Amino acid sequence: MPMKKVLVILGSDSDFPMMEPCFKLLKKFSIPFEAHVCSAHRSPRKAADLAVNARENGFGVIIAAAGLAAHLPGVLASFTTLPVIGVPCKNGALSGVDALYSIVQMPSGVPVAAVAIDGSANAAILTAQIMALSDEVLSERLILYKQELEMSVDLRNERLIEKLSTIGE
Amino acid sequence: MPMKKVLVILGSDSDFPMMEPCFKLLKKFSIPFEAHVCSAHRSPRKAADLAVNARENGFGVIIAAAGLAAHLPGVLASFTTLPVIGVPCKNGALSGVDALYSIVQMPSGVPVAAVAIDGSANAAILTAQIMALSDEVLSERLILYKQELEMSVDLRNERLIEKLSTIGE
Amino acid sequence: MPMKKVLVILGSDSDFPMMEPCFKLLKKFSIPFEAHVCSAHRSPRKAADLAVNARENGFGVIIAAAGLAAHLPGVLASFTTLPVIGVPCKNGALSGVDALYSIVQMPSGVPVAAVAIDGSANAAILTAQIMALSDEVLSERLILYKQELEMSVDLRNERLIEKLSTIGE
Amino acid sequence: MPMKKVLVILGSDSDFPMMEPCFKLLKKFSIPFEAHVCSAHRSPRKAADLAVNARENGFGVIIAAAGLAAHLPGVLASFTTLPVIGVPCKNGALSGVDALYSIVQMPSGVPVAAVAIDGSANAAILTAQIMALSDEVLSERLILYKQELEMSVDLRNERLIEKLSTIGE
Amino acid sequence: MPMKKVLVILGSDSDFPMMEPCFKLLKKFSIPFEAHVCSAHRSPRKAADLAVNARENGFGVIIAAAGLAAHLPGVLASFTTLPVIGVPCKNGALSGVDALYSIVQMPSGVPVAAVAIDGSANAAILTAQIMALSDEVLSERLILYKQELEMSVDLRNERLIEKLSTIGE
Amino acid sequence: MPMKKVLVILGSDSDFPMMEPCFKLLKKFSIPFEAHVCSAHRSPRKAADLAVNARENGFGVIIAAAGLAAHLPGVLASFTTLPVIGVPCKNGALSGVDALYSIVQMPSGVPVAAVAIDGSANAAILTAQIMALSDEVLSERLILYKQELEMSVDLRNERLIEKLSTIGE
Amino acid sequence: MPMKKVLVILGSDSDFPMMEPCFKLLKKFSIPFEAHVCSAHRSPRKAADLAVNARENGFGVIIAAAGLAAHLPGVLASFTTLPVIGVPCKNGALSGVDALYSIVQMPSGVPVAAVAIDGSANAAILTAQIMALSDEVLSERLILYKQELEMSVDLRNERLIEKLSTIGE
Amino acid sequence: MPMKKVLVILGSDSDFPMMEPCFKLLKKFSIPFEAHVCSAHRSPRKAADLAVNARENGFGVIIAAAGLAAHLPGVLASFTTLPVIGVPCKNGALSGVDALYSIVQMPSGVPVAAVAIDGSANAAILTAQIMALSDEVLSERLILYKQELEMSVDLRNERLIEKLSTIGE
Repeated sequence: MPMKKVLVILGSDSDFPMMEPCFKLLKKFSIPFEAHVCSAHRSPRKAADLAVNARENGFGVIIAAAGLAAHLPGVLASFTTLPVIGVPCKNGALSGVDALYSIVQMPSGVPVAAVAIDGSANAAILTAQIMALSDEVLSERLILYKQELEMSVDLRNERLIEKLSTIGE
Repeated sequence: MPMKKVLVILGSDSDFPMMEPCFKLLKKFSIPFEAHVCSAHRSPRKAADLAVNARENGFGVIIAAAGLAAHLPGVLASFTTLPVIGVPCKNGALSGVDALYSIVQMPSGVPVAAVAIDGSANAAILTAQIMALSDEVLSERLILYKQELEMSVDLRNERLIEKLSTIGE
Repeated sequence: MPMKKVLVILGSDSDFPMMEPCFKLLKKFSIPFEAHVCSAHRSPRKAADLAVNARENGFGVIIAAAGLAAHLPGVLASFTTLPVIGVPCKNGALSGVDALYSIVQMPSGVPVAAVAIDGSANAAILTAQIMALSDEVLSERLILYKQELEMSVDLRNERLIEKLSTIGE
Repeated sequence: MPMKKVLVILGSDSDFPMMEPCFKLLKKFSIPFEAHVCSAHRSPRKAADLAVNARENGFGVIIAAAGLAAHLPGVLASFTTLPVIGVPCKNGALSGVDALYSIVQMPSGVPVAAVAIDGSANAAILTAQIMALSDEVLSERLILYKQELEMSVDLRNERLIEKLSTIGE
Repeated sequence: MPMKKVLVILGSDSDFPMMEPCFKLLKKFSIPFEAHVCSAHRSPRKAADLAVNARENGFGVIIAAAGLAAHLPGVLASFTTLPVIGVPCKNGALSGVDALYSIVQMPSGVPVAAVAIDGSANAAILTAQIMALSDEVLSERLILYKQELEMSVDLRNERLIEKLSTIGE
Repeated sequence: MPMKKVLVILGSDSDFPMMEPCFKLLKKFSIPFEAHVCSAHRSPRKAADLAVNARENGFGVIIAAAGLAAHLPGVLASFTTLPVIGVPCKNGALSGVDALYSIVQMPSGVPVAAVAIDGSANAAILTAQIMALSDEVLSERLILYKQELEMSVDLRNERLIEKLSTIGE
Repeated sequence: MPMKKVLVILGSDSDFPMMEPCFKLLKKFSIPFEAHVCSAHRSPRKAADLAVNARENGFGVIIAAAGLAAHLPGVLASFTTLPVIGVPCKNGALSGVDALYSIVQMPSGVPVAAVAIDGSANAAILTAQIMALSDEVLSERLILYKQELEMSVDLRNERLIEKLSTIGE
Repeated sequence: MPMKKVLVILGSDSDFPMMEPCFKLLKKFSIPFEAHVCSAHRSPRKAADLAVNARENGFGVIIAAAGLAAHLPGVLASFTTLPVIGVPCKNGALSGVDALYSIVQMPSGVPVAAVAIDGSANAAILTAQIMALSDEVLSERLILYKQELEMSVDLRNERLIEKLSTIGE
């Protein structure tokens, strides 16, 4: 059985820089993905179609990034039983608090898994954690990644020691 | 040409008490309306259908009330060019701030007209104001209503004077 | 019967750049409008006069943009039964949350239709939606505009695909 | 020269309980006052008239209490050069944060003196402090009041000691 | 291969009523689970042990509910590569905003999937969606559940129509 | 009797640019003032002394600007019965919301008159309004100033019309 | 050398119930304390005196509880070099957010150690932790207390298991 | 008995500039310290080890700086009875409000002493105040430091007077 794919949906291509860490981590974990620009409000039929057909088209997880009144993750979740991960974008006057509330405060029955504002990297890792439940290789990659994270702390520690030496008596 | 109707959509029948002032004012202004329970997340196809067909079915304005991640008004607006008025409900831990942000912070191109949290009366009056643009009778009713509002202040003033007399020297 | 005009009121000419999308869309939809600088606090008589006479002067909708303790839309609404659309400006220390609350939390009886913070484009589109209720030509223009919005998503999708190709393996 | 009066304006008689401490303190300081119900949105002409004529009618200070999109103090301030004190009311879903922002965030040129949410007692004391600048008797009363405040702390201290004795070992 | 279990961790047994919908839905979906009271701050070693051993002990997903400075989900996530779902509790002065921010704003590398404040039902459904990726039977149950949700809207619609008939002319 | 002076207190000389409009308006209204840097926390004795002696030293109003946990206006108010106007500064991570709450939420008995965040101009105007209660010349100046404000709107209106002409068809 | 005492200051005796856990824990840890009602605004001289003399009077730590514009902890800190712990009270319209910001956002040079809103128990424990640095007996008591905390989790776990058994299949 | 050391823990070396005032003040007060980079989420075992062994390793106080869902101070506090001071960092979309809530809203039993957002200087001074309880020399240094603070106000006062002279008539 081939590995399930990830469907990544952005409200606009202008969200690409914020989502780049997500794409890079999906590649790092060798998780196949497809990405689309699709707006809950400008192209609602495309949004519905993508979500309705996601399972049949071989997708296992949906990641959706949106700002302001960020309806995209919730709209997708209303049309599928696949897990949907929402990434609130730090856009506009409210710096993403509006997007966070619009994504996380879903009513009972239709969940969206919210990650941090602009937290696209964690959307990819959460996806990997979900897909690893039935994929031992991916599971091993995640354990290695966690070790890398831990080791990166040592590196930062060394840099701190250097910086501390610059403080005069 | 018959008067256009108003389509009122509630996320749940439990929102009825909050919406009752809206229904009463629509009756007071003799504006015909239809009301439905419809959830953006639990019945997304019904939501899309209601909005897509609203114009043909003789509706002129849509009022939608929703709480939490209140996507309903925005989802309806994505499927119609009729004006959509959103009423944020004071539900849950955030007392309607989540619903307000989800309703008012719509992206460019797809507006929702937001009224106050639990402000269902104003949704009805705004609807009357919109429909009165091409309806002289309704326009007169609104002018009378505004006079009633002004006179209600006199009544309240009298009650204040009574209350003030209870303060001892 | 000639088309009704839109009365656009800005608290200051410094709000012009934020309101430019509104003016451009009104022009695109061929909706006649007049614009004034008028402050609820510095020129309250002019504000009252503009609102009191708006209907007789051929206006159908009022758009008002204001920041901080944004009283302008509410003050105008207190003097007219025309629909008033309020645009909260992202000014000052609170980034427009103050303006949003001052505009949207109107008391029962005197509605203002709030759009997003700095959401002047949507004020124009909402105006067009309102005026289209009795104007078939405008109604067609809005349907075309909605199709343009949908097509713009395809363009953005192509740009996303280009950007994705830049991510190394 | 007779003492100037205070004009106290409430958006509704339902705000009377919250404003009672203000009325009692004005009486305590023997400051003459008149109270009116007047809404910035329901009776805007009355609001303008009250403010425009306040100085000629012998008023020296205006106190205005309002909730939600609390425009009343700012609207009054736009029509007078008398000092206007605004009391934000804890009404509705936002518990008075909306009223506080609507009252305090006034634009440059037209100040309102904001006190705490539901802080009507302080509106009276601030009024007394303002009027005492040219009234030695009132000035003495304020000094006595400040001493009473200080002594009330002693009383509370005694009650604390009693309560502390109830804590078991 | 037996179905993986769900590890549900509560900061206190007093969170049981809020979590009851979660437990009931896990039962409804026939998903095996174990529940523990464990505090990130009072029993940090137990928290670490539960998370470190979760995979070996047959768990596939962790659900953690916490209020105030809700560290529990993040602490568990730091010790495992299993997906961790965080449920912010509406406790204390800040009504769960503190818990929401503490749960959702995780740093890059260690995700927690946040659901709504007090949204324990959605934690169960999200869990089912995750586990259904490799479980066709569970996948079918979710599709049925989604249909039940949709049908519940019809029932609510009927109740609305009854309530509407009570509004007098 | 000579005119009373205004005591302006800044937490730091770095607040000077924000306070410059206040100083300029006091000069414009020919109101004598003295300015001091004084911190509620770094120089609490000086703060107490300034407030305790303010009346005897010929001051009529105190203006105090402070940021963060802005205790300065409240501390001054605790030592005097002169009216104290507080200007919250937009400093630090919370952009002045902390200062606004610290200044406006004073307990019953000890008022501070809060103006907008960074609203130093209004602190000067409010001061003028207070002092004008017993000063006819100052009262006239304020009426003229209000007329200037109103006329400045005309100027801005002309600039708007110029800007509007730049929008292409 | 006798153990240093703790100075506990409440803005009002009405804060006693919220502070009771603090008093009980100080007794439990056998830490001597004195408690006073003292208001930063109503009795500023007493506040200054208490802080100025605290060290000489044998105090080692000051705990101060205050609500609204909670200046008390900061005012005390301005007059002493003893560590001051601030407890924000959940009073008034803002539920303690105002008190939290007023207490924690102290300017550089004059720290206050803030604990949670209504977190009086933690003020006592933090005090014990501070005093235990030079008190081995107290240090042992804290270690025992931490073990009790950990064991209380087991008790709660048992109660959870009972409650879980009540959920029907 | 040698002086106890301070353990300063940063979530990342990128927090060094924000923490520099803390390091400089610890040096100024001649308080020995050790600094580590350690993440509650990336290196949870190191965090636990540092806290568990802190007392034996001669530490008396722990300072921890963290941003976003700032769990580090609370996680350290769960493993030690030493006083833990938390410094919320102004990182990310929420400007440190998330970190503040995550640090200060600790549950009963496990306190963290929160200082201001980015308030690292005060973390050092609070540490000095705590350690000075059993160290007369350090106590003297703090009294001198407080005098320096007070004198710095005089310097700033002079600079203000210079700046004031630049305001034209």
